[in-house]
Amino acid sequence: MTTTRTESDLLGPAEIPADAYWGVHTARARANFPVTGVPIGTYPFLLRGLAYVKEAAALANRDLGLLDSDRANAISVACREIREGALADQFVVDVIQGGAGTSTNMNANEVIANRALEILGHAKGEYSHLHPNDHVNLSQSTNDAYPTAIDVALIEGVDGLDAAMGVLHEAFAAKAAEFSGYVKIGRTQLQDAVPMTLGQEFGAFAVMLDEDRHRLRESAQLLLEVNLGATAIGTGLNAPMGYGPVAVAHLAELTGRPFTSATDLVEATQDPGAFVHLSGMLKRIAVKLSKTCNDLRLLSSGPRAGLGEITLPALQAGSSIMPGKVNPVIPEMVTQVAYTVIADDLAVTLAAEAGQLQLNAFEPVIVRALSQSIAHLTAACHLLAERCVSGIQARPEVMAARVTDSIGLATALNPLIGYRAATEVAGEALLSGRTVPEVVLERGLLSPEALAAALSPANLVPTASAG
Amino acid sequence: MTTTRTESDLLGPAEIPADAYWGVHTARARANFPVTGVPIGTYPFLLRGLAYVKEAAALANRDLGLLDSDRANAISVACREIREGALADQFVVDVIQGGAGTSTNMNANEVIANRALEILGHAKGEYSHLHPNDHVNLSQSTNDAYPTAIDVALIEGVDGLDAAMGVLHEAFAAKAAEFSGYVKIGRTQLQDAVPMTLGQEFGAFAVMLDEDRHRLRESAQLLLEVNLGATAIGTGLNAPMGYGPVAVAHLAELTGRPFTSATDLVEATQDPGAFVHLSGMLKRIAVKLSKTCNDLRLLSSGPRAGLGEITLPALQAGSSIMPGKVNPVIPEMVTQVAYTVIADDLAVTLAAEAGQLQLNAFEPVIVRALSQSIAHLTAACHLLAERCVSGIQARPEVMAARVTDSIGLATALNPLIGYRAATEVAGEALLSGRTVPEVVLERGLLSPEALAAALSPANLVPTASAG
Amino acid sequence: MTTTRTESDLLGPAEIPADAYWGVHTARARANFPVTGVPIGTYPFLLRGLAYVKEAAALANRDLGLLDSDRANAISVACREIREGALADQFVVDVIQGGAGTSTNMNANEVIANRALEILGHAKGEYSHLHPNDHVNLSQSTNDAYPTAIDVALIEGVDGLDAAMGVLHEAFAAKAAEFSGYVKIGRTQLQDAVPMTLGQEFGAFAVMLDEDRHRLRESAQLLLEVNLGATAIGTGLNAPMGYGPVAVAHLAELTGRPFTSATDLVEATQDPGAFVHLSGMLKRIAVKLSKTCNDLRLLSSGPRAGLGEITLPALQAGSSIMPGKVNPVIPEMVTQVAYTVIADDLAVTLAAEAGQLQLNAFEPVIVRALSQSIAHLTAACHLLAERCVSGIQARPEVMAARVTDSIGLATALNPLIGYRAATEVAGEALLSGRTVPEVVLERGLLSPEALAAALSPANLVPTASAG
Amino acid sequence: MTTTRTESDLLGPAEIPADAYWGVHTARARANFPVTGVPIGTYPFLLRGLAYVKEAAALANRDLGLLDSDRANAISVACREIREGALADQFVVDVIQGGAGTSTNMNANEVIANRALEILGHAKGEYSHLHPNDHVNLSQSTNDAYPTAIDVALIEGVDGLDAAMGVLHEAFAAKAAEFSGYVKIGRTQLQDAVPMTLGQEFGAFAVMLDEDRHRLRESAQLLLEVNLGATAIGTGLNAPMGYGPVAVAHLAELTGRPFTSATDLVEATQDPGAFVHLSGMLKRIAVKLSKTCNDLRLLSSGPRAGLGEITLPALQAGSSIMPGKVNPVIPEMVTQVAYTVIADDLAVTLAAEAGQLQLNAFEPVIVRALSQSIAHLTAACHLLAERCVSGIQARPEVMAARVTDSIGLATALNPLIGYRAATEVAGEALLSGRTVPEVVLERGLLSPEALAAALSPANLVPTASAG
Repeated sequence: MTTTRTESDLLGPAEIPADAYWGVHTARARANFPVTGVPIGTYPFLLRGLAYVKEAAALANRDLGLLDSDRANAISVACREIREGALADQFVVDVIQGGAGTSTNMNANEVIANRALEILGHAKGEYSHLHPNDHVNLSQSTNDAYPTAIDVALIEGVDGLDAAMGVLHEAFAAKAAEFSGYVKIGRTQLQDAVPMTLGQEFGAFAVMLDEDRHRLRESAQLLLEVNLGATAIGTGLNAPMGYGPVAVAHLAELTGRPFTSATDLVEATQDPGAFVHLSGMLKRIAVKLSKTCNDLRLLSSGPRAGLGEITLPALQAGSSIMPGKVNPVIPEMVTQVAYTVIADDLAVTLAAEAGQLQLNAFEPVIVRALSQSIAHLTAACHLLAERCVSGIQARPEVMAARVTDSIGLATALNPLIGYRAATEVAGEALLSGRTVPEVVLERGLLSPEALAAALSPANLVPTASAG
Repeated sequence: MTTTRTESDLLGPAEIPADAYWGVHTARARANFPVTGVPIGTYPFLLRGLAYVKEAAALANRDLGLLDSDRANAISVACREIREGALADQFVVDVIQGGAGTSTNMNANEVIANRALEILGHAKGEYSHLHPNDHVNLSQSTNDAYPTAIDVALIEGVDGLDAAMGVLHEAFAAKAAEFSGYVKIGRTQLQDAVPMTLGQEFGAFAVMLDEDRHRLRESAQLLLEVNLGATAIGTGLNAPMGYGPVAVAHLAELTGRPFTSATDLVEATQDPGAFVHLSGMLKRIAVKLSKTCNDLRLLSSGPRAGLGEITLPALQAGSSIMPGKVNPVIPEMVTQVAYTVIADDLAVTLAAEAGQLQLNAFEPVIVRALSQSIAHLTAACHLLAERCVSGIQARPEVMAARVTDSIGLATALNPLIGYRAATEVAGEALLSGRTVPEVVLERGLLSPEALAAALSPANLVPTASAG
Repeated sequence: MTTTRTESDLLGPAEIPADAYWGVHTARARANFPVTGVPIGTYPFLLRGLAYVKEAAALANRDLGLLDSDRANAISVACREIREGALADQFVVDVIQGGAGTSTNMNANEVIANRALEILGHAKGEYSHLHPNDHVNLSQSTNDAYPTAIDVALIEGVDGLDAAMGVLHEAFAAKAAEFSGYVKIGRTQLQDAVPMTLGQEFGAFAVMLDEDRHRLRESAQLLLEVNLGATAIGTGLNAPMGYGPVAVAHLAELTGRPFTSATDLVEATQDPGAFVHLSGMLKRIAVKLSKTCNDLRLLSSGPRAGLGEITLPALQAGSSIMPGKVNPVIPEMVTQVAYTVIADDLAVTLAAEAGQLQLNAFEPVIVRALSQSIAHLTAACHLLAERCVSGIQARPEVMAARVTDSIGLATALNPLIGYRAATEVAGEALLSGRTVPEVVLERGLLSPEALAAALSPANLVPTASAG
Repeated sequence: MTTTRTESDLLGPAEIPADAYWGVHTARARANFPVTGVPIGTYPFLLRGLAYVKEAAALANRDLGLLDSDRANAISVACREIREGALADQFVVDVIQGGAGTSTNMNANEVIANRALEILGHAKGEYSHLHPNDHVNLSQSTNDAYPTAIDVALIEGVDGLDAAMGVLHEAFAAKAAEFSGYVKIGRTQLQDAVPMTLGQEFGAFAVMLDEDRHRLRESAQLLLEVNLGATAIGTGLNAPMGYGPVAVAHLAELTGRPFTSATDLVEATQDPGAFVHLSGMLKRIAVKLSKTCNDLRLLSSGPRAGLGEITLPALQAGSSIMPGKVNPVIPEMVTQVAYTVIADDLAVTLAAEAGQLQLNAFEPVIVRALSQSIAHLTAACHLLAERCVSGIQARPEVMAARVTDSIGLATALNPLIGYRAATEVAGEALLSGRTVPEVVLERGLLSPEALAAALSPANLVPTASAG
């Protein structure tokens, strides 16, 4: 029984497993790039992007009379199957690969060709009927098909991240409402400052996230401009007149998204600016998420020798040695995700800067970095919302005691007794270990009624209702 | 003759040089932070930003009846003088400072107060008439006045950078037009690819820059939302009802820019997101500029043992030892600037991530990074345009010879003779050292006329006219 | 048939698959951290490190009378099996996890306990006989067992990288010898400079790599100082007197490496300095490798419109559209690996900086970054040596022609005709398109014999023999 | 009166201010690189390095008969004056410059030549008597003189940093001794863990710093290997036989440091590995310093609503609005310095990676980054020691109360009552708001005497005496 088939390229013949949908070019790439052990098949959005682009190209080639309907239909069907998740295990080239994405593109061409051959009733490898290069890759180069597929992939990935951020936003907003009545001491530079509500504190987390969602969606808009039709360097050599716009129109229709052709295809083919932009945005999101999680860890520190104003849900034993210790494991995980995103942004920066002349040869590592960052951030947002934020409990008695105790109350008395007297009160309170109200009353600076009014929640936190 | 005056703070009295406009708080900061040796006075946009904010605050305080007209007018005049460049040498605190900008804010309060005192006919230091804290800083905290001043400063700085990028864009666009008739071999992965024009190559530089200008201006829009009125942590404690919107309205009028109040002042006070965003954009610009300059260095490499397709203007002797050597010093400088911008973006990222609870204490290092990056990029764009790009000369004879010589011509024959035959032609040409046309004719694959048509500039570079 | 067993922790009971060697703590972690989808079992060195540490601890506990020989032996056997590669699929917690490594440590404790239970003739989950916490983790905390396991893992990983770098060094050295007779034009700032040999060029690659190997081995030495015995925060609470040194002695004996106890265990428990140091070293290696690969791409650029001084072996078709194009795919891959290593160094930096008080909670992301970087660099060095460098061919005729043609020859005439005359010769040669020797002879500056001697390889490249 | 003199280069004549020690090459560079506004004269160590190298070269040239004694002596005297600080204002080229350091080298050549001319009784600009290129730069290229000068500069800079770290180490060690008797709760992951002493906490800071000093000094050793004698690309072209070792021997004698010649000068000329290594070390120091300062801010947080275990000295008013607020301004400053060092390490990385073929053209930005980082870290260590650490006060009553109150005490009871019972005690204490000892006594788990012994400082912190 034959278990392999023979395929050839410029290096000569190679034996391909008979049941493999990939072919000789993929086989060469597997041998050349056993680097991370992670195949491109683990990036579902990239596979979807490739499948969309290859189908759009086939339809455009059919429209322009370059490809007959049978072949075009078979390619379409194969692409749709891949989009639905089929054959993911056939995308076997390593995510880190030399060659500016050629191996990824050829892996796609070969898998689609062999599946289309089956659909047409032929055996895998019978490329005279339908060829990976001559038909699936027709009118394309890696240098336009691959970046366009990345664009599609990233837009879909961003959608998922945006939704996850929405879930997290809702979780914070719900807590902001729940905690709106708890007055606490705000802190600047880790020093006690002036009063606010815990609701305001969580409200800020929610608002921060919401702003980042807006920026993220704006950034994804830049990906809608694609270079399909540029072929090798943007001059469109070997693509028929009019092919580009037709292919892009098909892409837009297939995806339901308003893709357009870049105005200057030479520029678009060499410029990874939109990837750098998106990466910067993911970094921004990571920075904010990490800051938020650091705050959650600070606020829940203790339970007795820390700030201890909130309690995070217990999810697992916190220590292999300390009984009863519960650690802020979800915020810690999110912060680590943030660090990988910030690091991946550097990889994107380095790769983008290294582009030379008409092409950036380092796009595969950009794809890896962005795919990882989007997936990790998406998971982190869901886990943070569902396993941490939604279960956070306030400790209002701790917060209230500290407001009464706080030196920061003196700030609220500035308008009534002046900055100088307030400073003296603050100093005496600090030295003597007493509270600000005690010192104020003792010094007769205010009547008990005036003091009570000045220190009422409504006066201390004038913006709470607006929050 | 007295050469000092005595001022006091909570640490006690301190001697201040009699002619200094700054006071005791600035003196403490100078002693605490002799770090870089670079005073904030070297950042002109920051001084302008501070002066705008302090004037806007004074006018709002006057409108609300908290400050009499005489004092408000004196503060206004002092601020306008500073905006025009006066007293820059009085802003002496180090650009790296602890305290979340308090030292910068107090330096501004003191200089403005002392200049206003002079305007009112008093001596410097007679704070009973007009006090740095009680009058200049009235209704403000460092935590709202300082970030708002940064916003103003950055918007003005971005304007200058945008203009410099415009100059560079024009220089590239002019060369793109000048070079539109020169056909050359495009390169991908540093390997000879297919033909294009040198005009298309320079056109891509121009387009890339133009896109970045759009993104830069979008990013600056985010800075128009300010937190003036937030005071210490965003609750507006100690600022009178209605103060924030009035102050922001004055700021908008003074600057002629549509500043608005942030919706959630607690969030706005702790969130350096707009700074991270702008920094990411500057990094994107740096990445592209560096790529462009690397291309200029590649294209001008040689003059004899390199690509040698263009000549950069000679600006200085290139070597202390090699006669006649001329180096691409301006592109090299720009690339180094780009590296500092990418590095400064990391500093911004680190500082932003380190914010805690209601404030980011590390904004001074963010200001330093962004101020440096904007200034360096602005200088780099001007120098690149004026000292390099505008003087670039093409070497059309070098380019033309290589087109004829190129294996990449085989690609253009794909549609006529097929991929397989074209590959064989390419292989034979490479091995034998002959040209593609020679091999094609020898093999009788095309008639001389058909070959000439296929290899005509119009066919080789179909998009040249559209470029 | 029962397919699960029930285990409990402070959150209550949980159903564990009956055939799983991991237990309830691992189950919680799996639920909490579905982040990257990559389990710790994919890091073989980490598993080996954990197995070594757990065995060393068991032997120390036995020596000190805390653990009977039967249990100690069973733990030993289980650990040895894991070291040989068994049960890797049971290490299922995600590589990114909150909790400072507790989940990894507990996963190890549970797998070892259950395998040891089997060895002792008990069923999995019968922890009354041998308990993950009370016996496998005895006298340990995650906070000493985990970092010590990382130390062991990294030392083993570095050994493999060092060997791979040795292979690459040999490949470059062999080419340096092979190419020692080819004179060529050296380049500075991409401009033609003065002559050298291609052997010197490749020799520099070899030397650079060798220096980095020395630095790498030095860096790994720092990992030999471990904190085993520190328990939770370095005070050794709950570990018996004398336990630490005994455990470290066992670790040294088991591994055959001179591990020692850190002098200050409190410091050692919180300080990831050795990880930061190693990461910086990996980054240094990455920077050099990338520079080397960029040089290979430059030197092989062309084949006709580039430098074209060497030819890299053809490994796969370079283009889906351009016939005969062969790209430098291995150097491109290595550069991308370098970018991920530089990026991962940033992740290590961020995580290290974020440590707080007695512990760094972010060590899992440090482990991920270092494990990836070592594995990727190891693969990259092997592939670069075996699939690229060993097959590089020189093009001596191209190099020789350029030496003759070079303006840089004028430098060699400085001592004979003076800098000023040499500059004039260089200028005229450049303008007229002639060679330096032609101009010198025409001007009668040197006799043909003197000129020939001056431009002899021995004079042009005086150090070639020493190279 | 003549106020300028005329000098010429390949671009033609230029007017130089008559009193300037720099000449035409410097003038070109000033015009080409108005980038940062910071001249190289602000880097005193770089000027010293240049002066050492130029003197060593002059002495070697004299020894080899290439330079007469009069000129050599004049150059020596000029260099010694510059080393002592003279003429720093004549080093005017921008720290960011294209040209691989040529402008810095030429600035040095010109200043030294003109000062030597004065010493010899000639006027500035009378280069026929002593020429910047022909005499001061004799037997050198920028490509060996400049990196060697950087090596010297960095070694001297590192000495200063090492000393500053020593001062800081002493300050921490003194506090460790002072605080050795204060028992407190250690924290992991910001959660209360087990007891330790405040002395141990500060001791860890001291030890960490000491380790970094060792690594720093090791790193500086790598700078002792120099490429002087390599000239343009390492082949020594134009330097006389034997020049390199003689020049290096002079350098060693002049500096009193064991400089040696690199074995492979081609490699040494292109490899910035030692700079990358040093930069990585500075980053490591920065990471640790920042972590330490973050701890100081955490431990001093409050004073009432934070950890509040220590008090930092008050150095300035902390707020323009909040009376009595004192902020941790020195630790905040140090953290910002750390961020700039981490960022500058990225600039070094980028510049090092961008080297091409026989030279790294981007060394000026490496010099800038390293010079800044060393200077800022040196200042930061002194300020942290003298203005913060030495004045830190403990709050033992706060710490003691929290130990008694801590749930973490349950860990110490593990060996006496078992992990399970300890966990139950911990849980009840946490829920009921009582202390662990109260619950233990109530449950009759231990006698009061046994409990007191178990919770004695000697038992809780067994390693304290060893600390």
